[in-house]
Amino acid sequence: MGKQFLEITEKKEVDAIIACVAAEVEEARAKTDASVEKVKVAEALGRIVSADVFSALNVPPFDRATMDGYAVVASDTFYADENNPASLIITGSISAGESPSQYVDKGYCMGISTGAPLPKGANATVKVENTSEYADGAAGKKTKKVKVYKPVAPGENIMLAGSDINRGARIVRRGTTLTPRETGVLAACGLNEVAVYKKPTVAIISSGNEMIAPGEDLEPAKIYDVNSQALSDSVRECGCSPYFLGIARDNTEDISERLNESLEKGVDVIIVSGGTSAGVGDLLPKVIEELGEILVHGVDIKPGKPFIFGTLQGTPFFGLPGNPTSALVTFNLFVAPLLRTISGIPVQNHEKGVRRKEKRIKAKAAQRIFSERGRNEYVLVNLVSAKKPEEVSIIAYPILTGSGAITTLAKADGYIFMEKGKEIIEEGEEVDVELLTNLFASKKLYQNYDTLRSG
Amino acid sequence: MGKQFLEITEKKEVDAIIACVAAEVEEARAKTDASVEKVKVAEALGRIVSADVFSALNVPPFDRATMDGYAVVASDTFYADENNPASLIITGSISAGESPSQYVDKGYCMGISTGAPLPKGANATVKVENTSEYADGAAGKKTKKVKVYKPVAPGENIMLAGSDINRGARIVRRGTTLTPRETGVLAACGLNEVAVYKKPTVAIISSGNEMIAPGEDLEPAKIYDVNSQALSDSVRECGCSPYFLGIARDNTEDISERLNESLEKGVDVIIVSGGTSAGVGDLLPKVIEELGEILVHGVDIKPGKPFIFGTLQGTPFFGLPGNPTSALVTFNLFVAPLLRTISGIPVQNHEKGVRRKEKRIKAKAAQRIFSERGRNEYVLVNLVSAKKPEEVSIIAYPILTGSGAITTLAKADGYIFMEKGKEIIEEGEEVDVELLTNLFASKKLYQNYDTLRSG
Repeated sequence: MGKQFLEITEKKEVDAIIACVAAEVEEARAKTDASVEKVKVAEALGRIVSADVFSALNVPPFDRATMDGYAVVASDTFYADENNPASLIITGSISAGESPSQYVDKGYCMGISTGAPLPKGANATVKVENTSEYADGAAGKKTKKVKVYKPVAPGENIMLAGSDINRGARIVRRGTTLTPRETGVLAACGLNEVAVYKKPTVAIISSGNEMIAPGEDLEPAKIYDVNSQALSDSVRECGCSPYFLGIARDNTEDISERLNESLEKGVDVIIVSGGTSAGVGDLLPKVIEELGEILVHGVDIKPGKPFIFGTLQGTPFFGLPGNPTSALVTFNLFVAPLLRTISGIPVQNHEKGVRRKEKRIKAKAAQRIFSERGRNEYVLVNLVSAKKPEEVSIIAYPILTGSGAITTLAKADGYIFMEKGKEIIEEGEEVDVELLTNLFASKKLYQNYDTLRSG
Repeated sequence: MGKQFLEITEKKEVDAIIACVAAEVEEARAKTDASVEKVKVAEALGRIVSADVFSALNVPPFDRATMDGYAVVASDTFYADENNPASLIITGSISAGESPSQYVDKGYCMGISTGAPLPKGANATVKVENTSEYADGAAGKKTKKVKVYKPVAPGENIMLAGSDINRGARIVRRGTTLTPRETGVLAACGLNEVAVYKKPTVAIISSGNEMIAPGEDLEPAKIYDVNSQALSDSVRECGCSPYFLGIARDNTEDISERLNESLEKGVDVIIVSGGTSAGVGDLLPKVIEELGEILVHGVDIKPGKPFIFGTLQGTPFFGLPGNPTSALVTFNLFVAPLLRTISGIPVQNHEKGVRRKEKRIKAKAAQRIFSERGRNEYVLVNLVSAKKPEEVSIIAYPILTGSGAITTLAKADGYIFMEKGKEIIEEGEEVDVELLTNLFASKKLYQNYDTLRSG
């Protein structure tokens, strides 16, 4: 069943195929409430809002004093100065949190604290610094009064009800990632819950007879499974929840079983990495063909050539190389854009249907870099910030340990794309480096970035 | 008790005082195991490693084939070519995950899969593409043989045990923030646990008689508490755990009680914001003086002048303005650097004892911006990416709604620092913008950044 591409597909075409499936999945998710959940604002940091949020109230909810002083009728203070202060009778005072019960008439005023509601009748606040209180009248019949030395205009030192946020105003847009600023605004409007997109669940399966899980005893001929961990954490960095299904042995039954379990669980995406054993290159496509459709089998890039993309009963499926560095590079190139799309982040930077969301910085090649003729090559690089007098820049060192080494993964901050036809990058040439992990999550790059930008 | 600075302190001096306390707290934490915990690698993404991690094993643990083909004695293949292939007897085959039991002698070979351990005697792998299998000898006594058409050098197409990571090698340095790359390397070495710094706990107290918690009914004269939410999430963004102690009323008992609760709980830092009620400006310093020491009371910046810093029984204490925008600006300026220090991120960019870790980008002023004479002013700005032909840049719009408005907070992407003496920024002038939230957490900035960098 299904169409099968056994030939190598061009990267651009692969991007377009994945973007198309991503858009379909996103649309399907948007039609169902199953992709949305209400969460406490207290736990919503970093989540993506699924519907525009409107304020049910005015902020501030009442006309509010913005200074400590006296609530007055502004016209009572016009023309007042040091020599001719206005004199007003104080009828009481209002603290923040208290409701004023009195009306302020011309010739009268009330003491007021910052944040307290303005009493009716008053239309401005005189700062306490521009006043002096005194007692007036005969002993035993003293009246509390205040001299006002500076005039105020109507509306001065008050914030009108709804002037900050009007009842009914949109306060957070659909698709916004919540930062402390937005959670603060939600709180200001009295909201303690918010509707967000559910985090897509991503099934992760490692495959290989030689794999064992970290923490287990190392048996002869076995190696520890790296990809389950590295891919789970990469999935987390894309705002999704990994669902680890363990290590599958290299046989049809074991892989089928885990794929079926993923589908029954209702995961949003499935990733299988590996295995490296002989014959296994044919095993995975065979299983996929039985359960769904292969759309891409092989892409014209290095590393990552044996990449597979397809759908299993409508669920996007990725087959990544077993080699950890290749797995992480293909994850960044192909899986991450799809995860971002189905997470509900609105499309902004479209480029021929392909979402561009790589984290990219400019650097200089530390040495001559060669690419294999006729291949789109991703050269892993280590970034170091170089500080020469009057010049700060980031230097990119190609990592030469090869894509099979774990240490390549450990050293790699990002990769340079050498398009087919580009066979040499000269020493000192400016290159674009796509970062492998979140810029600020990676301390080292954070510092480089700091240096670069503030230098 | 204690020294008290009632005068306004210069920002630089405040930075130095805070850096000094931060270093003391960090040192005290480093001396005790209480600041370190073991966590599962599966839950360690983003955590900071508290001690260098070394590999207890070789990676790979054995000499490993990196190609499908035949494990051979390399010298058997020397001088082989299409016309004169070397002919070797096949004694068996090894799949990935299997232990080879046989020895490979000169003249013999074994089939081998990528990832399988190299059998003893063999020192290279011939790629399957450069071979052809055949059966040799009389019927009934056939021997399986392989013709090798290309020579291999010793070590070719194999990865030697420990060549990737040597037993005893340091794989992760103390102070590293774990990304998928590092968690992958830990997995490669079989580790499923890692020692990390405990997240510092930060007590958060809002103060004000007019405050009520979001979700509660809005009573007359009350407003919803914004700072608890915005500061809790800011604390989370700094890698710490907020511990919310509720809203304190503006009286000595209520504030003291919550401060004592924080100290009993053993929090690492205490933040009180507000209140705006009259007389409360004196209340907090009084309470602090009773329990500890005030080191800063007032700083020469706007917004944020009434900032307080001190220690309560050795625990750093911050008194932030009640106004949410001022609270968030002072948090970024003064609290965040201390939180980063005590989180265990190693000191790298010291500048006269003050850690510089702001997230900064360059932008152009959208219009003339004025500052108040004689004040260090932080002007909040909204960032918009502007794309002119042949030029991509970020434009900074000053936000004029005032620091009291919640919408100022909502619109602000960052702030421009106008040092005392700098009273005007001209339209189009290049300015440094300190970002209020994580660059990539904020979607809008992410896009701007993308555009800026890839444009």
